[in-house]
Amino acid sequence: MTVIDLNVDIAEGFGAWRIADDDALLAVVSSANIACGFHAGDPGTIRRACVTAVAHGVSIGAQVGYRDLAGFGRRFIDMPPAELVDDLLYQMAALRGMAEVAGGRLAYVKPHGALYNAIATHEEQAAAVVEAVTTFDASLAVLGMPGSRWLALAEAAGLETVAEAFADRAYTPEGRLVSRREPGAVLHDPDVVARRAVRFATDGTVVAVDGSVLAMPARSVCVHSDTPGALELVRAVRDGMTAAGVTVESFR
Amino acid sequence: MTVIDLNVDIAEGFGAWRIADDDALLAVVSSANIACGFHAGDPGTIRRACVTAVAHGVSIGAQVGYRDLAGFGRRFIDMPPAELVDDLLYQMAALRGMAEVAGGRLAYVKPHGALYNAIATHEEQAAAVVEAVTTFDASLAVLGMPGSRWLALAEAAGLETVAEAFADRAYTPEGRLVSRREPGAVLHDPDVVARRAVRFATDGTVVAVDGSVLAMPARSVCVHSDTPGALELVRAVRDGMTAAGVTVESFR
Amino acid sequence: MTVIDLNVDIAEGFGAWRIADDDALLAVVSSANIACGFHAGDPGTIRRACVTAVAHGVSIGAQVGYRDLAGFGRRFIDMPPAELVDDLLYQMAALRGMAEVAGGRLAYVKPHGALYNAIATHEEQAAAVVEAVTTFDASLAVLGMPGSRWLALAEAAGLETVAEAFADRAYTPEGRLVSRREPGAVLHDPDVVARRAVRFATDGTVVAVDGSVLAMPARSVCVHSDTPGALELVRAVRDGMTAAGVTVESFR
Amino acid sequence: MTVIDLNVDIAEGFGAWRIADDDALLAVVSSANIACGFHAGDPGTIRRACVTAVAHGVSIGAQVGYRDLAGFGRRFIDMPPAELVDDLLYQMAALRGMAEVAGGRLAYVKPHGALYNAIATHEEQAAAVVEAVTTFDASLAVLGMPGSRWLALAEAAGLETVAEAFADRAYTPEGRLVSRREPGAVLHDPDVVARRAVRFATDGTVVAVDGSVLAMPARSVCVHSDTPGALELVRAVRDGMTAAGVTVESFR
Repeated sequence: MTVIDLNVDIAEGFGAWRIADDDALLAVVSSANIACGFHAGDPGTIRRACVTAVAHGVSIGAQVGYRDLAGFGRRFIDMPPAELVDDLLYQMAALRGMAEVAGGRLAYVKPHGALYNAIATHEEQAAAVVEAVTTFDASLAVLGMPGSRWLALAEAAGLETVAEAFADRAYTPEGRLVSRREPGAVLHDPDVVARRAVRFATDGTVVAVDGSVLAMPARSVCVHSDTPGALELVRAVRDGMTAAGVTVESFR
Repeated sequence: MTVIDLNVDIAEGFGAWRIADDDALLAVVSSANIACGFHAGDPGTIRRACVTAVAHGVSIGAQVGYRDLAGFGRRFIDMPPAELVDDLLYQMAALRGMAEVAGGRLAYVKPHGALYNAIATHEEQAAAVVEAVTTFDASLAVLGMPGSRWLALAEAAGLETVAEAFADRAYTPEGRLVSRREPGAVLHDPDVVARRAVRFATDGTVVAVDGSVLAMPARSVCVHSDTPGALELVRAVRDGMTAAGVTVESFR
Repeated sequence: MTVIDLNVDIAEGFGAWRIADDDALLAVVSSANIACGFHAGDPGTIRRACVTAVAHGVSIGAQVGYRDLAGFGRRFIDMPPAELVDDLLYQMAALRGMAEVAGGRLAYVKPHGALYNAIATHEEQAAAVVEAVTTFDASLAVLGMPGSRWLALAEAAGLETVAEAFADRAYTPEGRLVSRREPGAVLHDPDVVARRAVRFATDGTVVAVDGSVLAMPARSVCVHSDTPGALELVRAVRDGMTAAGVTVESFR
Repeated sequence: MTVIDLNVDIAEGFGAWRIADDDALLAVVSSANIACGFHAGDPGTIRRACVTAVAHGVSIGAQVGYRDLAGFGRRFIDMPPAELVDDLLYQMAALRGMAEVAGGRLAYVKPHGALYNAIATHEEQAAAVVEAVTTFDASLAVLGMPGSRWLALAEAAGLETVAEAFADRAYTPEGRLVSRREPGAVLHDPDVVARRAVRFATDGTVVAVDGSVLAMPARSVCVHSDTPGALELVRAVRDGMTAAGVTVESFR
């Protein structure tokens, strides 16, 4: 039986502001990357997300990020690694407690936005994220791009690493994401997105922008939740998986 | 043997800003009310405070407050009780995790500033604080003024309540604190402050501004750490206790 | 010729978060209450709003509020009046500069949310708002509810006051807004809202929830922009005005 | 007659937190780089600083920075230049208004911390700062390090540029500041600091760490105000200038 995880970003509103329809998304996915309050996520939004995730049996991850509400965590901050460790510990701690209050538990960590991108190559910050996770709870899994520096460091540190692929993003022949600034970087057609997701699960491959077929051995598929039509995409992926005989299930 | 707790506010800096000499204070007191990030306290400052508290065997409390860095948590915010519960859960969760990372554990909760004052009488917010603590961890103790509404509600909810008295504040004949706007509200003489603290511990009484003697059955003595000369006051209290044969020890 | 102003809240997003379709709204209204960064409004959003307002000949107002992003300025903060004055000066200054950069100018001030509600009766904070405006620029107009304490103080201080009425809110027989917690408090039918707006303009009256007719001598009509369907309501009001021969025009 | 400006950072507290003794510093210097609220500086602190600056005839500058209270503006943020322009416009606007309320006027702009360092070489952000100033008010002067990219761009854009030298920092033979991580980078001896300041003014030179003499044609001398003993250093510089017959006076 083929099994794959489906993860989305959750709780990325703040106060009166909303980005996505958390309740609807949590009825479809198997893993929720819940914002922890630094780039998004007020306590009320976080708590409701945890409660809903628990109700649907969705795995709870800490979507940690830079402290940057105004930039939604999408701007690299060149902070000292030691400060980054502390910021991440705080965020994981807050989310773990909120998950437990909701009757759940924290299962994994997935960095957000600019931090996610930075630690693909930034040695010191990648090491800081690994240090934060191992210091906090070495039994947590970590979610990231295959080939990223931080996933390699996490594996070397003995953490369970989970490679993820993006169903709604185009890939370069080198296996990187096409920059959002280029046309065609983000895929919007639910059928196309669903087919790519199924291919990750069944073949472990992806077709790059030049037509070449790349190995993409992902244990989790990510669909962005902060784009218009996100819910439709996520549902298409889920339905496509079911139709293809793939079970959508958390890696935990 | 007479025993009493000595508590101060800790980790009330933020980033580059400092209020008190945490390291020195933690070498003297038995309980640390550690700011949780909403009115003060960045993750680095919180973590260092937890590490130092653990090193000195000091009990760790969550000093929860309104989300108000600009106002240092000293301005009442008329927020819906449900929002307050969530804000407090988040803060307690963050601090508990930071305490555990430091090898310690969260022992109690003491609200800060305007929240502390509000819940002396504000029924809905007082109930919200109690709900937050019981929801989070009903084994935590709570620290507050004797006679306050929130301590009564906490006791009714089955929480362990710890009454505290202020060694550096004048009391009205009704057992309330003299308003800071009035002359003589805050005591600065180390000898005077130390004598009052010893009296709390040995007699369970305080002399009010009109000379009357009030019962003040405190299990903990608080000295404010955000005033000039705070460290000297705290040391004087500690030395006075020792000289009077009183053991300074956490209630936990 | 009957003339009335139509004002809405603008620039109430923050970073990645949006509340309303500012561009579309600014094509319809005559006055824009632009958030100033304390309850909402990042500099980019504010600047674009100013540029668009200038392009459409829309009057620019400073929608000042409490410093409370997490609460969207909807929670009363019991801050010292002197601090409130300074916070308002800062916000007006920031918005005036942004308006000037966009080729426009600051024309009026309208407090937001909990501050708006508070100064209807809170003497000290009402006086603080008046002090802030007169200190900053006594030629600015101020927008508020008829009968509010702050509008009375503003008038006494020599400021130009502009009474406003809410087209999408039910009124009590005393001329107050029905609390949002009660059913029917907010009106969603575009036709109903448009008719009420026209009645403000042509008759200077409103029908209260008990059917009684109240005098409501408003020079400006407000429609809330942070509710679903807001744009449709605002357009209905504008079209209704035109059909009734009323000119929608800023009071400035 | 030899004349030089003496500038320090002012209003770098926030709410209850203080960094420096603004009142005392403003009695000594000729230019105040006033924080604008993004890396430090609440409205009350800013206003008081403006009032005191005006009382002492001190020139008011906008000390603009990244939006980063937790990092005190000392962490590079890789933000899009267009967002940076808007953030700077907002800060200059806020400060200009506060200066005018105090009876003064905004005279110049000096970027803070990590922004200051970044634009020494970061082309896009340097250009963004220049664009912000020219868009806001092209008659403002700008203060920066000689040889920095942003000062060159500012000059090319027609802005009045003012080169500054640091009296309390060691210089490399290339005319750069020795990194704070290296021993001897920061000078603490008032006599030494004062002599260097006088040398800037009278000779236009500085002795680098290797003993070589460099040209340092500064029109302004900066002393850091956020270090212990800052006030003593600033007074020593002022007294040294007076003793050497140098007039301390704003470049404006």
